[in-house]
This record gives sequence, C-alpha cells and structure tokens, in this order.
Amino acid sequence: MKVANLVGQRFKEKPSDCVIDSHALMVRGGFMKYVGNGIYSEFPALRRVTAKIENIIRKEMDAIDGQEVLFPVVMPASLWEESGRYKSVGSELVRFKDRNGSKHVLGMTHEEAAVHLVREYAQSYTKYPFMIYQVQRKFRDEARPRAGMIRVREFTMKDAYSFHTSQEDLDKYYDVCFQAYNRIFQKVGVPEVVTVQSDSGMMGGSVSHEYMLLTPIGEDSIVICNECDYRSNMEAAKNEVDNSGACDSAELLCIETPNCKTIDDVCAFLKSDVKTSCKAVVYQKNADDKFVVAFVRGDYEVNETKLRNLVGEEVHTAEITEEDCLVAGYIGPYGISDEAEVYIDVSLKGIGSIVAGANKEGYHYTGLNLERDLVNVNYVDISKIKENGICPCCGKSAITIKRGIEVGNIFQLGTKYTESMNMQYTDENGESHYPIMGCYGIGVGRLAASVCEVHHDEYGPIWPISIAPWEVQICCLRADDEETKKVADSLYKDLKNNNIEAIYDDREIRPGAMFSDADLIGAPIRVTVSPRNLKESSVEITTRDKSVKTIVPIEEAVKSVQNLRLKLFADIAANVEDYK
Amino acid sequence: MKVANLVGQRFKEKPSDCVIDSHALMVRGGFMKYVGNGIYSEFPALRRVTAKIENIIRKEMDAIDGQEVLFPVVMPASLWEESGRYKSVGSELVRFKDRNGSKHVLGMTHEEAAVHLVREYAQSYTKYPFMIYQVQRKFRDEARPRAGMIRVREFTMKDAYSFHTSQEDLDKYYDVCFQAYNRIFQKVGVPEVVTVQSDSGMMGGSVSHEYMLLTPIGEDSIVICNECDYRSNMEAAKNEVDNSGACDSAELLCIETPNCKTIDDVCAFLKSDVKTSCKAVVYQKNADDKFVVAFVRGDYEVNETKLRNLVGEEVHTAEITEEDCLVAGYIGPYGISDEAEVYIDVSLKGIGSIVAGANKEGYHYTGLNLERDLVNVNYVDISKIKENGICPCCGKSAITIKRGIEVGNIFQLGTKYTESMNMQYTDENGESHYPIMGCYGIGVGRLAASVCEVHHDEYGPIWPISIAPWEVQICCLRADDEETKKVADSLYKDLKNNNIEAIYDDREIRPGAMFSDADLIGAPIRVTVSPRNLKESSVEITTRDKSVKTIVPIEEAVKSVQNLRLKLFADIAANVEDYK
Repeated sequence: MKVANLVGQRFKEKPSDCVIDSHALMVRGGFMKYVGNGIYSEFPALRRVTAKIENIIRKEMDAIDGQEVLFPVVMPASLWEESGRYKSVGSELVRFKDRNGSKHVLGMTHEEAAVHLVREYAQSYTKYPFMIYQVQRKFRDEARPRAGMIRVREFTMKDAYSFHTSQEDLDKYYDVCFQAYNRIFQKVGVPEVVTVQSDSGMMGGSVSHEYMLLTPIGEDSIVICNECDYRSNMEAAKNEVDNSGACDSAELLCIETPNCKTIDDVCAFLKSDVKTSCKAVVYQKNADDKFVVAFVRGDYEVNETKLRNLVGEEVHTAEITEEDCLVAGYIGPYGISDEAEVYIDVSLKGIGSIVAGANKEGYHYTGLNLERDLVNVNYVDISKIKENGICPCCGKSAITIKRGIEVGNIFQLGTKYTESMNMQYTDENGESHYPIMGCYGIGVGRLAASVCEVHHDEYGPIWPISIAPWEVQICCLRADDEETKKVADSLYKDLKNNNIEAIYDDREIRPGAMFSDADLIGAPIRVTVSPRNLKESSVEITTRDKSVKTIVPIEEAVKSVQNLRLKLFADIAANVEDYK
Repeated sequence: MKVANLVGQRFKEKPSDCVIDSHALMVRGGFMKYVGNGIYSEFPALRRVTAKIENIIRKEMDAIDGQEVLFPVVMPASLWEESGRYKSVGSELVRFKDRNGSKHVLGMTHEEAAVHLVREYAQSYTKYPFMIYQVQRKFRDEARPRAGMIRVREFTMKDAYSFHTSQEDLDKYYDVCFQAYNRIFQKVGVPEVVTVQSDSGMMGGSVSHEYMLLTPIGEDSIVICNECDYRSNMEAAKNEVDNSGACDSAELLCIETPNCKTIDDVCAFLKSDVKTSCKAVVYQKNADDKFVVAFVRGDYEVNETKLRNLVGEEVHTAEITEEDCLVAGYIGPYGISDEAEVYIDVSLKGIGSIVAGANKEGYHYTGLNLERDLVNVNYVDISKIKENGICPCCGKSAITIKRGIEVGNIFQLGTKYTESMNMQYTDENGESHYPIMGCYGIGVGRLAASVCEVHHDEYGPIWPISIAPWEVQICCLRADDEETKKVADSLYKDLKNNNIEAIYDDREIRPGAMFSDADLIGAPIRVTVSPRNLKESSVEITTRDKSVKTIVPIEEAVKSVQNLRLKLFADIAANVEDYK
C-alpha cells in the first residue's frame, strides 16, 4: 500500500470534540470517522488493526475449544421476553417494530441467542461442556457515548458462551478462559492489562472479572491493594472500616442546628469530627418511587452498585418535597419514618456517639449510639472504599485507587438464562437439570482505542507490531530524485516479497510532512531512504518508539528489517504466558 | 474437531417449513437455525463455510486495490435524508428512534455511508480512483423472506464502492471488478454462475449486471439467447415482437360481448386469435392513486419493472370500482378516459385488426388499427419477453428462459449519491466536479446456500473443497475396537499435522448413522477406517460426490488424502480465469 493511495486523510489540528489523546490521534491519523452519536466508520488503517485483533482473539478462542458461530444483530422480542430482559433492561436496549408490527430488538449481548441456538442440541449430558463464540456487531443505546471508540453505541464484540453440567466444570473452564484472556491482551501488546473482581450487574451470576487497562482517562475506578494481589472494580469492592478507636458513647440529645443542611455545616456548627457523623443519601425505587435511605459515615460515599444489588431493583436519586415523609437535610436513622426502606453502612459500626439528623426541620441528634438506640441494627456494605482503606483480602490499610478502561470481562452466569429459557439436559440417571453458563466478552474497537491511549506520544499512536496497521513504513525523502526513488521502490518490493507488511510513502512532499504522517500512522518500524544516506549507500532504520535508530547498508536493509520485526514480535511473545 | 463435540444437531426428518432442498439439508445438517422471520443463526459448520467465502472475496477485492473499511449497521436518518432515500425507500428500510428520540435506520446498503466516509478525503482529483469495501451485517425488512438463507432479512454482505473522475475510468474499473467477481464465484466452486444485464432499481445508475446461479428454485427469471451471448434478467430484458405476418386491417366495429371479461372469453366468443387481441392491465400510482393502464398483446404479460421505470414512480395493482373512469373487463385503447395514463406495448405494433375493450360495459371493438384509429401512437417496451422470443442482441428467435438466484451484482451508479450528498473534487484546472461511483455486492450467506442448492444430493450438501467446512471427514467404524480406534486416531493427528482440515467421527454408533452424518456435513473427502479394511492394513478413501472410491495401505493414507485434496483444489483453480 502506498500512502498516496491510502483512503483516510491525516491532519494537524486537534478536533475540538476530542477530550482524550487517543481519540484525537485516531481522528487526526485517518483511522475513524464520526457518523452519529457513538457511531463511527473505520477507515482502512483502523480496519487492519481491528482485523488483527479479531484474529488474535479467534486463535485463542479456538485454542480453548471454542467454536465460532454467528448470531443475528436483530432478534425477535419474544426471545428476550423468554429471559425476562425485554422488560428488565432499560432504554439501552433498542426496541422497534418491523413492517408487520412485530416487536424486535437490536442485540446488545447474546445470551438469549446462545441458549436458543443450543437448546435442542445439548439435551444430553454427553454434549457438555462446550463453548461457542462469535465476532459480531452490537448496538447498545448508551446514554452518554464518550471518548471516541472507548464508549460507543455500535461496536464489534467477541462474545463467548460456555455451557456446563457442574459448577466445578464451569470453575475449571472459567480459569482456562481467564488465562486465554491474559494471552489475548499479551499478544495484542498490552501486558499491562490487569484483572479485577467485578460486579455482575444485569448479566446475572456471581463470580466475574474485568480486564482493565490502567489509564487516568479510564471511566472505571479500580481498587488495588499494595500489599497483596487484591484487585477489584470499585463497584464490587468490599469496604471495611475500623472504628475501634472512635469516641465513647454519650447521652442522646436533640440539638437545634439551624440552616445546617450538609454534613460539613453540621460538623462545623457542632465542632464535631466528620468521622463520627452520619450522612443520609436518599434514593427512590424506579418501580414505585418508594424511598430508599442509605446511611454512611460522613466522610464516605455511597456505592450505588452495591446498594442496587442489595435493594434488588433499580433506584434513582430522590426528589424530596415538603409533603414527603422525609425531612430533607435532617434525615437520620433514629426516628425515621417507617415508609422509607433504610440501609445502614458498615462505616457507622462501632462509633459510640454519632451526630445524625433528627428527622425534624432544623434539628440533629448528638450522642446517637446505633446499637443502643435502635432496635436491631443490621449493618450492610454500601459504601465506596477509599484511598488507604482496609484491604478486604489481607486486612492491611494498603488500598490505592486507580482509573481503568474495561477491555474485557468474564462472568459466571449460573442458570439465570437456562432456567428462564427452559434449556435442560438429561444426566446419566435420566434426571433433568439446567446447564450452568459462563460468558466472556471483548470489545474489539474499544481495545484498539485503548491500546492507542496507553501507547502513543504527542505525534501519534505507537502500535504494538502484532496489531499495527502495517509493520513497516518506508519514507522516500526526495521522491523526485531518480536514484532515491529507485532504491525505495526496490526496497518496498523486497519487503513485500518477504511477506513483511509495508506502507510506502513516495509522495513528493517535504520531509517534515512525511514524518508527521508516518508518526500518525504509527507503524512500529520505519525505513527512511534519503539522498544523504544514499551517498554512503545506506538507509536509516528506526522504531516508532525511538528505541532503535540505525544506519545500515542498502543491501542489508531487508535483513535488518526482518530481524527487527522478529525482535519486536519476540518481545511481545516473551510476555505471553503458557496455559497452566 | 470431533463430530462428538461439534455444536449443531443433525437429523433425518425434513422440516415441514423447508420448501427447497438446500434449506432442508442445511437445517438437517446442523448448519443454521431459525431465530425469526428471515433471521437465522449460523452453527459452527456454516460459520466455517461463510468465513471461507468471506476470505475468498477479501483476497479478490484486495487484488483489485480495494481497501477494507467498516461502516456502521445503525446510521442516523440524516445521512439517508441527504441522499433522499430516507423518504424514497419503502418499508424494507427499518426506521427507529433512539432513547433521545433521534431518528435512525438500519443499513440495508451503504452508499450514503461510503460517500460520508470519503467526502473530505477525496477533494482532489489526485486521490482518484479508489475503491473501499466492507464485510458487514445488513438488515432489509423483506416482505416475503423465503427459502432459508436464499432470501432473508438479516445477512452478511460484502459491499464495495468505487469512485472515479470519468466515465471511462469507471468503465475500466467496472470491467476489472466484473472479472474479479467471475474469479470469486469460480474460486468458491460455482463456475456455473452467469452474468446477466439487470435493472438498476432503487440504486440509481444505468449499466448493471447480476451474477446468477441457474437453478429451477431461483426467484429471478433469466433471459438467455441460444444463438449469441445475450443474457439478461427478465426485469431488464428488452422485448421485440414481430407482427409482420399479422392480419390485414378491417373495419372498426363495436360488438356486444356479454360476460366476456377476460381475453380468453372474448377470443372464444369472437373466434379470434389471442395474438390479435389487446389486453389491459391496470395499476394505480402509489402517490395519488391515478390510474396507469398498460396495453399488451393478449398473449404477453406486463413487465412491471420496465413499466415502473417508464412511469418514474411506484405503482400498485389497481382496484377499479363502478364510480371510476374505467370499465373493468372492457378497457381498450380507443376511447379510453383522459384521466388514465396510457402505455401501449410494442407487442401491439403492426397488427392490422385488433380486438380490444370498448370502454363500455359488455362491448368490445373488432378491427381496431392503432396507427389508423388513434392520434399519435407511441409504442413503449413494457412486456415480458417469452420463450422463443426475438433476441434483442442478435435478432434471432432463440430466447430461452431459466430461473436463477442472484448471488452478486455490480452497478454503475453515476453521480446519484455524490450529487445529492454534495461530494465534490477539484480537477487539474481548479474546477469542481461530482465523482462517478460504482458499487459491487455479494451476499455471503445466500452464496453459501446457493452453492448447497446446486451442489447436493438427497443425502446432503456436496461442498466444493474451497469452502467446505472441513476438507476431510474421518469415519472410524467400530470405535470400540482398539486397533481401529488407534489407526483412526493416528490418522486424525497426521492430517492435522499436515494442515489438512479434518473432522473426526469416533463415536460408537452404527456405520449407517455415521455415514448419514458425514453426508449431511458434506466434507468432499472421506476416509473410512474399519476392522474389515484393517485386515488388509488398508483404509478406504472416497469423495462425497462418489467420483473416487479407493482402498489404500494405511501408511499411504495421508499422502493419498493430500494428493486428492490438491487435485480437488486444482480442479477449481482450472476454472479460475486470469485477469485480462
């Protein structure tokens, strides 16, 4: 491929709508184009990257006995009604009617389609275990698409589904898949991806992990222990709080606290420590608007995912009016209305004397002791763990919090879908059971963008050779010079003949413009052919990451590129773990 | 892959909803599963077939300088409003609103997306010509999905779009693409695909060809000349009729023809030849219900595609009531109401004396002479050519009509999309022009199903080796016999080590059931390992099409399979034309 013919324009100016570097570089480099909110087209350069990622994924899926299938993008609503998700999933599921008025959905995930495909096939225990996967487009009507290909509405995803006859068998396969995922990210050239425990959300099931590429622009908070190997998505991280050194108990008093509607106001007014205060965060159930009140220690935040899981249904931030049973700004656990559903966080456990709202306009309690003053206190875990918090695994105060992009996830689904969709198999004794499922996803475009986000400089992407659109870029400086052009032409031909993927820039443009374009395309190896080096019968070979810069005789150029290419692949392979 | 692990069940009973053989065999063989009306999932066996077809297509597209891109399935309606197709395309285009109420469509074709992608890139003549293509899912809300994967609503399609600065350049590239398409079908193993002239329909443009796989179950009528190389889709075939030997003229008389509402009734009553009668077929314009009357010779049918192109808008079959200006059953060209739009077909030209409706209940004219009795007769071509009709190319009466499945098409689009979407480039002199486009499609799943339709026997598909899910199937008869199992196991390993794609059946089942399954899977080569042949230290090698059946010594089995495999590939390659 010649740069002169490559479809996709490159330019200097940072597009105003790009808030993260990788997005700006991928637009400026002619990789992607905005079509609509959260919808992009892929130019040839990006399609080459995503195709390579897809093939790396396919190889690893096949290696763990995955069988590639294809589910439809459009599905009849009846399929999603079987699982109950036609109703339970929110507006991220696109619902539409076809020309005959039949209800359909756009696939945002394919558990239903997977169960539907194998329901008749896998009626005997002898068929198990097995795994099927696809690489297919999906549409999820995200409320807030952002950051280019990081959070989009339409995307290519590899989604896999495994079926088992026992939890032990799923555990075993889950571990194999866990390793396959590690290998995929290592092969793609991002060994820095970490696995974290995650919340299973609407997928159902219990055990689940996310693969996170750590970067400050990530939208997920990752909880990491510096002392042990505990890592978790904030959504799923257990919070433990030690209040053993907290104040002694005191007398319960109702104090007038005029105009003190926030924790900070109250603590300042009463000259008390925020760590002995009780904060109320109020939600309402989506279904019936019933109030859900979460009480956490004043210096903690509510982890809404954990709260939702506990409540067992969707909630939204409450709007409290004067007619309601709650007194906004003065809500506390003592004497609160029976109409509200109350949850008290573990961060409040063991505090002798708490400042809390008195459920009366303009008043707070001091000296509140939950164990003493309430009937049956049931502490639950609904708060976010904090920097330097207690690791739920090793117990040390060694928690640090980082940001990450989720590039893959694996879930143990249990029998949620097989039960609801009535998929059963017969065991050795003729008894019927619901198979146990696992599911395993990787977003292809998001992975490409994430790699660019963690592997770039100010001039463009620095693609790992395993997924680079081209392995080598040949820059012919002074293509108007006959001799230079001849050497570059011949080098291009020789590299192609040696099965090295080269892109060749033989345009008659300034060297600065040519190098800028090469930086934006981001091929890991560059060969520069220039009249100056040709005087010494040499060409220059460099790497995009600037680690190599060497002048080699023309006749050794192909060999040098071959060796450098093999070295870059070997560097990646060195990170790839074998299966245990 | 072992048959025991292959996801997808095979069975004997023909499914009741399958009207064509390939559909029944692909369901019975565990290739596909019905999800909804015109929507299917692909089991692993079919996904292997479609993946091979996709790769054959990609290779040929790359060979003619195509660059692979990816357009979205979901597009904002605004993109289709630019081209005017948001309004002009009927209900086969799925329209829906997203969570914010924004209008979107599901891509059924991607001309708009293609122009959108390159509109900024290709603003200078120096960028031309170029071609981009994708392999992507599409959804077209067909009124009548049928015949399994032959006519579906959701499908994988390779669609390509080329851009040019002159008609000559498009003509040149169109020819190159024409040849690439021939090569694709030859490589897929269906050299019997023929090209025909086609109607461009809603795509716009003028020159276009379809690639037709001839088969009695095809839904298109193909017009073929036995004397020259003229081939056309019926929709686009010009009809010429020679009435030179027809009757002399006679006096125009209005005759009472009670209860003669059809041509046959009238001809029987008047004892006249149907070839001198005039049939009226009445339509109404979709837009305003205005009547459109098509007059053809009594023994011809109206070609509605040609009629629509002439009318320039959509029409539907008319419903005539007593209040209307037309007298149902008695409509004729002489004295017809001015309110109707009248078209007179060439099949009526040159007849001296015609029987036609008198536009009066219960009366017909005899002796009608159109040239004599009407003011300004303008004959148009709106009839279907018939078996033994006159070839519009060589003029001989040598037309034969066959049925075919359209497996690909190529169109010269002209500037329809670049003009409507305002894509322009600047030429050498600084002047602006609209680029000229071509577009080129192949339906992947339909092609797979079509190959199965023309290459099968009553027991299953007979896949060409280039797209077969597996090249070889090993049948181990009596897998319970230790020695047999050992030989078969080792053969399976050896074939895999020699990069031959083998599927291995080592289930302990009856030979009949094992062979039935192998027939349904349809691998072109079969190796049978049985205790009987092992007595003579041999195995049996056969081909699925029964052309080869040979017993070879065990130690030569791999070599024999390799040779047979190479021969089958060579047979296909022998059909593949070089580029001119």
